[in-house]
Amino acid sequence: MSQPLNYYKADLRDFKFLLFEQFKLQELLGKGIYANWGEDEVNAVLGEVYAWVTKELGPLNGTGDKEGCRLEDGKVITPAGFKEAWKALYAAGWRSLALEEHDGGQGGPFTLHSLAEEMMCGACTSFNMYPALTQGAAEVIQRFGTPEQKERYLAKMYDGTFAGSMCLTESQAGSDVGAATTRAVRRPDGTYSISGTKIFISGGDQDLSPNIIHLVLARTDDAPPGTKGLSLFIVPKVRLDGTPNDVACGGIEHKMGIKASATAILNFGENGNCIGEVVGGVEQKGISQMFLMMNFARIGVGIQGLAVASSAYLNALSYAKDRKQGSSIKQWKDASAPRVSIIEHADVRRMLLDMKARVEGIRALSVKLTTHIDKVRVLGEDNPEAAYHQGQVDLLVPLIKAYGSDQAFQICATAIQTYGGAGYLKDWPVEQYCRDSKIFSIYEGTNHIQAMDLVGRKLGQKGGANVQAFAKDVATFVAANKEHPVLKDQIAILGQAMEALTSTAMRFLQWSSGGKLELVPLAANRYLEMMSETAIGWLLLDAAVIAIAAGEKLAADHPDRAFYEGKRYAAQFYAQNVVATVPMKAQQIGKEDRLPIQISDAAFATI
Amino acid sequence: MSQPLNYYKADLRDFKFLLFEQFKLQELLGKGIYANWGEDEVNAVLGEVYAWVTKELGPLNGTGDKEGCRLEDGKVITPAGFKEAWKALYAAGWRSLALEEHDGGQGGPFTLHSLAEEMMCGACTSFNMYPALTQGAAEVIQRFGTPEQKERYLAKMYDGTFAGSMCLTESQAGSDVGAATTRAVRRPDGTYSISGTKIFISGGDQDLSPNIIHLVLARTDDAPPGTKGLSLFIVPKVRLDGTPNDVACGGIEHKMGIKASATAILNFGENGNCIGEVVGGVEQKGISQMFLMMNFARIGVGIQGLAVASSAYLNALSYAKDRKQGSSIKQWKDASAPRVSIIEHADVRRMLLDMKARVEGIRALSVKLTTHIDKVRVLGEDNPEAAYHQGQVDLLVPLIKAYGSDQAFQICATAIQTYGGAGYLKDWPVEQYCRDSKIFSIYEGTNHIQAMDLVGRKLGQKGGANVQAFAKDVATFVAANKEHPVLKDQIAILGQAMEALTSTAMRFLQWSSGGKLELVPLAANRYLEMMSETAIGWLLLDAAVIAIAAGEKLAADHPDRAFYEGKRYAAQFYAQNVVATVPMKAQQIGKEDRLPIQISDAAFATI
Repeated sequence: MSQPLNYYKADLRDFKFLLFEQFKLQELLGKGIYANWGEDEVNAVLGEVYAWVTKELGPLNGTGDKEGCRLEDGKVITPAGFKEAWKALYAAGWRSLALEEHDGGQGGPFTLHSLAEEMMCGACTSFNMYPALTQGAAEVIQRFGTPEQKERYLAKMYDGTFAGSMCLTESQAGSDVGAATTRAVRRPDGTYSISGTKIFISGGDQDLSPNIIHLVLARTDDAPPGTKGLSLFIVPKVRLDGTPNDVACGGIEHKMGIKASATAILNFGENGNCIGEVVGGVEQKGISQMFLMMNFARIGVGIQGLAVASSAYLNALSYAKDRKQGSSIKQWKDASAPRVSIIEHADVRRMLLDMKARVEGIRALSVKLTTHIDKVRVLGEDNPEAAYHQGQVDLLVPLIKAYGSDQAFQICATAIQTYGGAGYLKDWPVEQYCRDSKIFSIYEGTNHIQAMDLVGRKLGQKGGANVQAFAKDVATFVAANKEHPVLKDQIAILGQAMEALTSTAMRFLQWSSGGKLELVPLAANRYLEMMSETAIGWLLLDAAVIAIAAGEKLAADHPDRAFYEGKRYAAQFYAQNVVATVPMKAQQIGKEDRLPIQISDAAFATI
Repeated sequence: MSQPLNYYKADLRDFKFLLFEQFKLQELLGKGIYANWGEDEVNAVLGEVYAWVTKELGPLNGTGDKEGCRLEDGKVITPAGFKEAWKALYAAGWRSLALEEHDGGQGGPFTLHSLAEEMMCGACTSFNMYPALTQGAAEVIQRFGTPEQKERYLAKMYDGTFAGSMCLTESQAGSDVGAATTRAVRRPDGTYSISGTKIFISGGDQDLSPNIIHLVLARTDDAPPGTKGLSLFIVPKVRLDGTPNDVACGGIEHKMGIKASATAILNFGENGNCIGEVVGGVEQKGISQMFLMMNFARIGVGIQGLAVASSAYLNALSYAKDRKQGSSIKQWKDASAPRVSIIEHADVRRMLLDMKARVEGIRALSVKLTTHIDKVRVLGEDNPEAAYHQGQVDLLVPLIKAYGSDQAFQICATAIQTYGGAGYLKDWPVEQYCRDSKIFSIYEGTNHIQAMDLVGRKLGQKGGANVQAFAKDVATFVAANKEHPVLKDQIAILGQAMEALTSTAMRFLQWSSGGKLELVPLAANRYLEMMSETAIGWLLLDAAVIAIAAGEKLAADHPDRAFYEGKRYAAQFYAQNVVATVPMKAQQIGKEDRLPIQISDAAFATI
């Protein structure tokens, strides 16, 4: 067998543009919690992480997919190389970039962590789920745990000695998490006896770490039904005294993709001997505690989508430059004309520009979101100025999760199409990217749940202040650039989209107050799409304004000229092909179409 | 291991509606070449084929995907059960439904054959490729072969003794088929010595039949370059005297899907001992001969897409009725409310109606197309009236191939989303449908090639007569129904779409005559989409007009009332959500956007 290849590619120039030219991370560096960080440090880390992932993780992506996980004697065996990668990852310190120094971390910007996360996800999506979920579980304990709980678990979860998992779903309680029936019975010593079965638990078992700290949603017998009655428990696979804790892996799923990420069925307390402790020592706070983790997990899913889509695009680009087929359009009638690289063909270029615009747009949305998180971190949560930034985070989370994941799948499909028949083969990475990416629209809250979160919770949050601030930011940009010599047509398209978005938000309000609530779930997905497209259109145009100004100052042979040129084309293409559809979508929502709820069940099919 | 399950589902009520209520196949039955066929015979065959495929082929779909094909000692081994299915298929006679009686067939309508093909594809896509390609190869010999060639090969290809394959692609000659370099050297006895390597050959080797009749595009040494110099050769794997013909399988591909369909690399004449005969005894007719087969193959790919998408939809519908999750929206605040089937949730219904409308719309387009073929068969190709029907066939082939395949992938993805996490698992059929369907947009001419065929060849065919006839048919329908009490809003949407389509066709003409040829490939895909959406919107509305009239005559408890109700909702939903986007797409094309060809190669990425 030949040496496994790394296919992961990232365009670090784009990362740096977003960090330092568009979102101005440097304004937060060198002061406060980021006192030890400067541009050079950030750039150095980006380069080191990229070098590391392409060497250590990238080669595991294809082999991990081929080998998958397996269950032997009730234990999950991960693919060859995963154990070594786990050790190397924690040795390299890439999980602790944004962790504060007093917790053993490097105290860096969350945005830097997120870009590193993108590279780790993109290099090997399945592998990265184990440490990413471990970090998520640790953050819940960090935020909500008692001092003793932090002392017991955190250091080992941060250094990779322990892993972590999130145990929410049960077979009858997926999207309907409040239907969970896993039981927690108080024991005299203040701990709880846990019993129940959780399914779809990513990293629920593995052979990377000797212990796994499960965070388990369960219900005490006297708790009310629904989500409010749920409590969150820390349930180690192995007790800290080394005895087993009656947590058994009942099987793993066989899936379309992310095959090297074990998706486990976990049986807690089959022998009545599974002991947990309640997070923070308080019951019935499980959902709000889990939601903190969920928020980061949803950002993480958006980044997963971005990561594979970006590498799919860059691989397709590389293939299009190398692969010769057909003659130039100028010589298409001449059968003897020389063959050209397929990047010369118009439709291939259209697909490439389409992928580029979407990938770079989603990355801009992601970096905007994480920059707001960094600003909250720098300002402190209690600083009044932080409220604006936290509001934008809340608003953008469902967008990055749902739009990022839906688009990822589409972009990967476009990448396959760019390759042609070769894209369908396991010889190239794009078919795996496509399979892996399909789960992103489903887990951590389906994309419809994201849409309902957006229209049902986020639009009305703080009396609509968050969405109004967003609209004002876009309007300010449009007003400032409506005469832009290169971009004015696209700025106008953005302005129309923003108007359509605002009027649609008003419509949702009217529906809610006017007894038309049943229309909300029918239109929610489309609204999320409209808002995502408007947001991304704005950010791409903002980037283009910056890039055009920067490019004009450069010598004709400066290598950055091409990069800046790309920003302009991505923004114009996305505005004309995507943002331009937003007003039509508003019109469609305005029709108040109830067809899906009017049709009878029997009318769907005669079968 | 548990008994393999059949997951294939078809709604035969829809098949019968299209045949006898919308496209009036009965007008062609009982006369001319269909003298022996009546409605009862057609209905009986549909029922028998459905019963047969769900019993014999359906259970092979999942197991075939899991096992795949393998190469042992240079021979392809197909999955367990395929050999038995091959024998049973030919014994049952389902390949010869539309084959004329003097060729040993049943002389039935092509539309019936196509609906049977849909069921065979849907039940096991990979398996069906072997007999479908065999039939395609046989039809080329039937149409273009010498009497001796027909005598030698046809009967055995029709009865399953021999299989067939189409050998076009070479590693440097995929979409650019004219770059093929496989050589054919004349031998003194009038046969040819063939040498070269073909790739991506579906059914290029297998263990289902003792011989495979390959149709190979190759070039004689004195032939011109490009497609015009290609000749088509009959190259048996085993000569008819039983000696091997120096055709070696050099490997098979490992793919995202259709894993039980062997995709072979074939080496012809590695030992200088591969002998072929030229089809029809004439050289340099290879492309036009192959194109006949290609036309049917493209319809077949559209039907493949329809087949898996339809079964994906019906499986998702069945799952949505069975699966309990969450409470009714009316009781969402009550955590103790009973759990309901997910079909009660608005977004699930939206996905179901979306899939239903697309599936039934694509089937209507397919049946329209094959009914035109039947009319040509009944009238005879030389009958002046046949020209209209042949023109519509030519026009619609790229639509059914490209739109049918693009939509199939999207519909399968929607089916996965309807299942939620379960859809991502191999426990259910939809993830396989999604993987299988991705190839349909690529093979038999990529969907961009279809779009270029539409705008570059079909729009201008017969001086534009075919597309004008299409426009006239739609306009006649719109005029006749613009006051329809239930559908008038949607009829208006169709009318606007048709106008947008016509003005866009004019724009293509202006570009071609006005020196803007470079815009054509950039806009071609979007135009194909617009035309497909308009055509399908029309056919769904036509069905709804018929269904509403028929439904009104029925008693309130008649089982067909629900079926007819479904037709109305599918048409309205598709019009409002899909056809309504056509005018916007025309506007986008009208912007004459050249961005993808203006951006420099270096601007795509800094990598």
